[in-house]
This record gives sequence, C-alpha cells and structure tokens, in this order.
Amino acid sequence: MSSTPSHRLNINNINPHVKAAKYAVRGELAVKSEEYRAYLQGGLTDLPFEQVISANIGNPQQLDQKPLTFFRQVLSLLENPALLNHEDVLLSQLGYKSDVIDRAKWLLKQVGSVGAYSASNGVPAIRKRIAEFLERRDGFPANHADIYLSAGASSGVNTLLHVICQDDKSGILVPIPQYPLYTASLALLNATCVPYLLDEAKNWGTDVDIIKESYEKAKAEGVDVRAIVIINPGNPTGASLTEEDIRAVIDFAQQERLVVLADEVYQTNVFVGEFHSFKKLLRQMQKEQPGKYDGVELASLHSVSKGMVGECGHRGGYFELVNFDAEVQAEIYKFVSIMLCAPVIGQCLVELMVNPPKAGEPSHELYQKEYDGIFNGLKERATALHKAFEQMEGVECGSPQGSMYLFPTINLPAKAAEAAKQEGRSPDEFYCMRLLEATGVCVVPGSGFGQKDGSLHFRTTFLAPGTEWVGSIIKFHQEFMDKYR
Amino acid sequence: MSSTPSHRLNINNINPHVKAAKYAVRGELAVKSEEYRAYLQGGLTDLPFEQVISANIGNPQQLDQKPLTFFRQVLSLLENPALLNHEDVLLSQLGYKSDVIDRAKWLLKQVGSVGAYSASNGVPAIRKRIAEFLERRDGFPANHADIYLSAGASSGVNTLLHVICQDDKSGILVPIPQYPLYTASLALLNATCVPYLLDEAKNWGTDVDIIKESYEKAKAEGVDVRAIVIINPGNPTGASLTEEDIRAVIDFAQQERLVVLADEVYQTNVFVGEFHSFKKLLRQMQKEQPGKYDGVELASLHSVSKGMVGECGHRGGYFELVNFDAEVQAEIYKFVSIMLCAPVIGQCLVELMVNPPKAGEPSHELYQKEYDGIFNGLKERATALHKAFEQMEGVECGSPQGSMYLFPTINLPAKAAEAAKQEGRSPDEFYCMRLLEATGVCVVPGSGFGQKDGSLHFRTTFLAPGTEWVGSIIKFHQEFMDKYR
Repeated sequence: MSSTPSHRLNINNINPHVKAAKYAVRGELAVKSEEYRAYLQGGLTDLPFEQVISANIGNPQQLDQKPLTFFRQVLSLLENPALLNHEDVLLSQLGYKSDVIDRAKWLLKQVGSVGAYSASNGVPAIRKRIAEFLERRDGFPANHADIYLSAGASSGVNTLLHVICQDDKSGILVPIPQYPLYTASLALLNATCVPYLLDEAKNWGTDVDIIKESYEKAKAEGVDVRAIVIINPGNPTGASLTEEDIRAVIDFAQQERLVVLADEVYQTNVFVGEFHSFKKLLRQMQKEQPGKYDGVELASLHSVSKGMVGECGHRGGYFELVNFDAEVQAEIYKFVSIMLCAPVIGQCLVELMVNPPKAGEPSHELYQKEYDGIFNGLKERATALHKAFEQMEGVECGSPQGSMYLFPTINLPAKAAEAAKQEGRSPDEFYCMRLLEATGVCVVPGSGFGQKDGSLHFRTTFLAPGTEWVGSIIKFHQEFMDKYR
Repeated sequence: MSSTPSHRLNINNINPHVKAAKYAVRGELAVKSEEYRAYLQGGLTDLPFEQVISANIGNPQQLDQKPLTFFRQVLSLLENPALLNHEDVLLSQLGYKSDVIDRAKWLLKQVGSVGAYSASNGVPAIRKRIAEFLERRDGFPANHADIYLSAGASSGVNTLLHVICQDDKSGILVPIPQYPLYTASLALLNATCVPYLLDEAKNWGTDVDIIKESYEKAKAEGVDVRAIVIINPGNPTGASLTEEDIRAVIDFAQQERLVVLADEVYQTNVFVGEFHSFKKLLRQMQKEQPGKYDGVELASLHSVSKGMVGECGHRGGYFELVNFDAEVQAEIYKFVSIMLCAPVIGQCLVELMVNPPKAGEPSHELYQKEYDGIFNGLKERATALHKAFEQMEGVECGSPQGSMYLFPTINLPAKAAEAAKQEGRSPDEFYCMRLLEATGVCVVPGSGFGQKDGSLHFRTTFLAPGTEWVGSIIKFHQEFMDKYR
C-alpha cells in the first residue's frame, strides 16, 4: 500500500483542496492517542501511564457523562415500538413513566418508522417543535419552514458554506482561534478564509475594530467578503459573548451586508452570565430601529452533541435561517436532498432536547436532577482544572465561562522552541506531543485552531472525571519547564 | 422572502455548482406529492384519489416493510442500556431472546455509548465484523483498515468523489440511466460526468464497446477520465449484472487504469441469478492471471437502507477500498474526520446486517421468517407490477431482476409530446405529473436519471402494498393514451 506511481490515484493527483484541508482535532496526536489506547487494552504495561485521557475532543459520553434517562427511554421505544404493547411492564417493572410512553407514541405518529427517510429538511412536526422552542427562548416568532434538520451542526455548516461561497474570491470572516471545521470546509470549497482575531485580554471577546481591519484588508485584496462566523459560547476559547459584543457584530454585519453565521451549539454550556442568541438580539434591534436591520441575513446552528445532552454519536442538529431569500432557500433544500435526510433518530433527539419534560410531568424530577448534576459537574471540573493552570509556571488562563473547553496560553522556554524546530513541529505541537507521551493526556495544540503570532496555547476539555489526570499535567509541565529552561 | 437585490445572497450570486446540481428523486413531483399528502391529512376530499403512493423513492419502511425484529430489539437495548438490568423481564415478558441481549452487550462494550463519537472511520470492532462478512461473501481476505463506515452509501460516494476529482478536467464514467446522486455530486464538485449508456435490449447490462466509445470521446476532448461507476444491481434499472459483464468492466478498468466505484447497495435484492461482487471477481481474475490486475483500484459501497433491512432513516453504510494508495487513504481518513463520524447507531445496524442471527441461535428462526417474507413480498409485487405494465399500450418493461425498481419504456403519442412542450416539460415529466394529479401515485420521470435520446421512461418502486394503486396506473394510462392519441 505504499505510494507508488503504479496507483492511478496518488497523493499528487487527488483533489488538492482535500489535501489542503487541516483538521487537528482528529489529527496526528489523536491518532497516536488511539494507538496508545489499543496498546494498553492489549494488556501491555510499559507505558508511563495506565490510561489515555481524550481531552482533545468534546465527546462527553466517551468519558463520564451519562445520557439523560428520559431521552434514552423514548429512543428505546422508537427503535422497538413493539415494547409499546407492554405498557404495564414498562411502567411497573422497567422504570418508564407515562410521559415517556406518550412522547414515543407522538414521535412515532409523526415519523412513521425511524427506519424511513424523512423529508429532506427534516420531519415537519419536529421542525414545528423547534420553532416553538425558539419562540420561547427568544420571545420572537420562528417559522418551521426556515428550519433544517442536519446530521450534527457540522453538516449544517457544510451545507451553508457550500451554498454561500460562489468561487475562490468568496470570503468568510472566521474567528481566530476557531473550531477547525470552518477553515477545513473553506479549504475544501477553495473559498477564502478571512481570519479575525479574538481578544484574549477581553476574555476572548469579539472586537469590531479588529474585525473591521481584517474585513477591509481582505476587501482591498479583492476578496468578496460575504459572511461572518461567530462561535458563541466559544470553541476553543470557552468565551461567552456579552450582549454588547453581539450587538456590535450585528451592527457591523448590517453596515457591510454580511450574512451572520452563529454557531450556538454550546448555548446551554454557560457558567458566567447568560447566553444571548443572535436571533433574539437581531429581532430586538429591528424593534428598536424599525427598518434598519431588516436586511440582515442570519443562520444559527444548534446540536444535540453538546450541552447537557452530549449525544454526539447520534449526529443530530438543526439550523434556522432568518431573512434568507426564497430562491436561495430552495437551493439549500435541494442541496440537503442529495444526502436524503438527517438521521431520523437524531432528529427525534433534537425534538427531545428542545422539548424536555416540564415541571409537574412524571419524568421531570429525574430529568432536572440529571441535567443539573451534569451542569454542576462540568462547572466543578472546569474550576478545578482552571485552578491547576493557575499554579503552573508560565500558564495563563481566563476563568471558565462556558462551552466544554479551557484554552490556556503557555509561555515556553526558548530551548523548547528550538527542540520543537528540530523535530519539525511548532512549539505547542511539540509540547502537546510530549504531554501525551508522558501522561496519556491528549489535548490539541493552539496551532490547530489558529492563534495570534508569537502566542502558544492548547485546548483541553474539562469532561474527564477525577483529578489524577490534572495532577499528571501539573507534574509533566514542571518537568518540561525544568528540562528546557 | 422574495428574491430582491436587498438580499446579500440571491440566486445570482450563490455557488453556481449548487445551482447546477439536479436531484429529481426529491424534485418538483416529490414536493407536490407531499403537498397532496398534507392536503389529504387535512381531511379534504376533493382530490380524485384518497392517498398518495410514494413510489418515487426506495423508502421501504415509509410504506409497508416492517423492521427486522432482532435488529430493532438490539437497538432498543443500545439506546437504553438500563434495560439490561432486567434481563428476566426482557426474556420472559417482552419477547427478547438471549442472543439479542448478548449482542447488545457486545456492541456496548465496543462502542461505549451510542451517544459518543466513534473513531472517524467507524468503530474498529464493527469494521472487523464487516471484513469477516466480506471474507465469507467473497472467499477472499478483507482488511478492516480498508473499511470506512459512512452515513448511508450516499455519504460514502460523496467522500470518494471528493477525493478522486482533482479539477474540472477530472472525469468519471457514469451509467445512463443512473441514480442522480452521481451527476449531482459531480456537478457540486465541478468535475466532469462522462455518461455511458446501458443497453436496454440486453436487460440494461453494460456493454464495454459503448463504455469505450464514451471514454475515448471524453479523452479526445481533454477529459482526464479516472474512474467508472457501476451500480449493480441497477438503480433505476433493476438490472443484475452477469459475471461476464463484470469481468469485462474490470478488464477495461485495468487496460485504461480506471478506478472502479461499485455501488452494490442492492446486493441482496436479486430475483434472477445471483449477485457477483466486484471484489470477488477482481480477486478471481488476479488469481487466474497473476500480476495483471494487481493495479486495479476498487471501492465498493453497501448500506443498511436497502435489501431486506430497509433502514434508510438510520443512515448507515460503509465502503471498502481495495488496492488504494496509503497516502490517499490517509486523505480519505482526514476528509471523513471533518464531519467527525457516521451515526453510531447506524454503525451498529451495519454490524447487525453483516452478522445476523445464525442457524441454531435463538433469534434465527424469526429473523429468517421475516427476511424471507420481505424478499418474497418484494418479488411478488415486482411480478404483479410487471404484469400490469405488460398489459399497457406502448409500455415495455423487462422482467424484474433485482433492486427495488422497474424502469419501463413509455411510448407516448406525438400529441402528448406537444402538450408537454407547451407546458415547458419533457414528455416523461408531463406524463408523470398527470399521473400524480390523477392517481396520487408519485414516480420519477426517466429524464431524472438520464435516458437514450428519443426514449422515455419512468422509475417506480414496487414497495407499496396492495394492487389498487397498480390498477389506478393502468386506468390513468389508458385515459392518457386516449386523450392524446
């Protein structure tokens, strides 16, 4: 299987845009960590650690997070509707409540079988439930015709960027640091990424002056900048944007006629302040200054993968379009049709997420207890990890605000940078590789997300249970600093 | 929401390749049929039919096909593992057998939680089970490292075409008629579709002379033809290729150094003769003439959506790569990483499909009974529908061989073609639209798949139960012919 000219397809003649795409979250470090895991599972004990901690990816249920009972009970009935012929057994012996059964029946009525394709844009009744959720959340109307179910938010981003980018001059403003889905998708499309730096000193907030500078520079270079991506709460930064920051972005989008792509998949992972949706603030600004903001086009994305749901493996998500042209929406519909539909069981999970048990309903108490338990657990782990970073020499990290990540700055000695160079790596990659080899903890170097020139970071989730792995990071860091001092 | 210049994104400035893509299976007729369905559900009775029959899409569980009990019982336990704390109840009161429980436990051990992301290319243990299945099926070794789980076969095709196509000169040989996923994906990639006609007179078989002609013509026009798509059993044709046809295609691929893309999602839907996999025949040819065929690169695709499984909504599938370059495989791995992983519950369904209950195991008898029932039901329906077509004036249709479709030729009167022209439609579109309006039966015009110039067809599934809808087609056809004679 080596790369010889005998292959019709080889590294020199395949799609250059695929080659150009980078995706560090599942890159070399992640692959190596999986090799270590397999090695340990094989019973070998000559590594300096006993387990691999996958802190490189926001994958809650791979680590410690338990699924929400109500959700999974409903899904079990959707997968095997024959269980509904035994309601008494479900209720009296298996811990199912009547609202679980009612919800499963209602969903089955809407979808028929979860083994059937749905409409390309998703089950109509589920889209209506999402619209109702958005109305409750934002206090403004939502239309189910503007909602598209997707296989996780990633697939929604793929759809939107596919339609928005006309050619290689089409530019999209992307925050730096960013979740690399955006740069990777733009590389695949051969469109132009217009990076704008987030302000680490302002807790990774947005600064419209900086955005404007990037925008003007790209425009001067002939780039047709058409949209701005905002990830709020932030990935990898964990930042939770203030109302002022969001208003300023919408104002800028209005002035420069930019489509706003609001990646809001961490909307319930907020520890400080509260989540403000772009939709809500756009509608408020429209109310405050009638007419002015009516032209702003907004797409906002959500997912079952994050929050207290954490159902990544089910690949469920949706996006809502605000003020999109009808003909453009028809093209979006056609585009999603080609892949037929989002996984139907994932669509049902979206329905459960946006319409969980209400106070007074039989499953509510347990649901709330589990939900709060996950929320508090994440907050505690974030705080503990942050505390550890505060102790570490040369490490700076703002206090945890939201999402599932911390993104500390690491100030490494010059000798470490030299050693990295000799290995053909950036210093943060070098650091993360040594960390993995010494402790089994897999994190992602800041260069995988982009970072301000001269600065170094890594991203770690705070999903892993226990404190041992945090201790092993502290110990490694001390040794690393001593070695390269 | 009209298309005004006030929108930043409008039909004139979005991605022209999205606009160029066509996907008739879910096009105008499908949308109209859904409108009729909603209208009828609203209780209105002024249409000339009482129900909509979606014969436009191979969606078995939307119509009549019941899921296989063993599969869904296992999935219910994967969704709610807490049920495994009540084995006695499952066994004694809910109809679960011990092999259901064993399988669920084994799968849970492999995947952890179905709510967690898996490895980008799929759960390793599931890939191993697929490799074992391929070894049993073909009698030749398979390597799980060459297998990639995907969200249905469509997503696999998307991945492969993305990597294979270098630029707009890259050409892919695609059968005509074809499932429009291929032309749509090539349009999105702005690569070149090189159509080759299937031979209706030979039961829609492949004819290498015709393929060669298309290939040479494209080459002369400067197209870099790199791969050939074969859909076997055929979609929309239903054809099941002979061993000779497959050998001739492999031979041609070897001569011209073409990658073979074998879409084998209907491999168990074969009524006449037997299914021959491209992998098996390639390996046999390699054995017969050592060295000669070692350079042939093959990708073959399979899915849980079709066959007797029919679990479209779960979006499960995989592809196997044979003799692909290692560096190219690394790029494929990276590409699938960007969308994280295929739905994990769909991956588990793939495992169940390739490793169903064996003779002597507790669930085997019911599984086999259900499986045979579905197979025989499909065959009977295909035969009944074919018989109806034989009675219809101007309709010609080869006997059913496989897949889920019939693709009859329709010879329409000249006056019908004129009326179609006045409506801005092709004659087959015109015919299918009138059929839908008169009967509620939704089929897809041949032009949606491509057809030989001057010929007209439509594709219908034979999934719908009963004979009433078939009768309504016969009646409509007679009236249509009388009207335009």
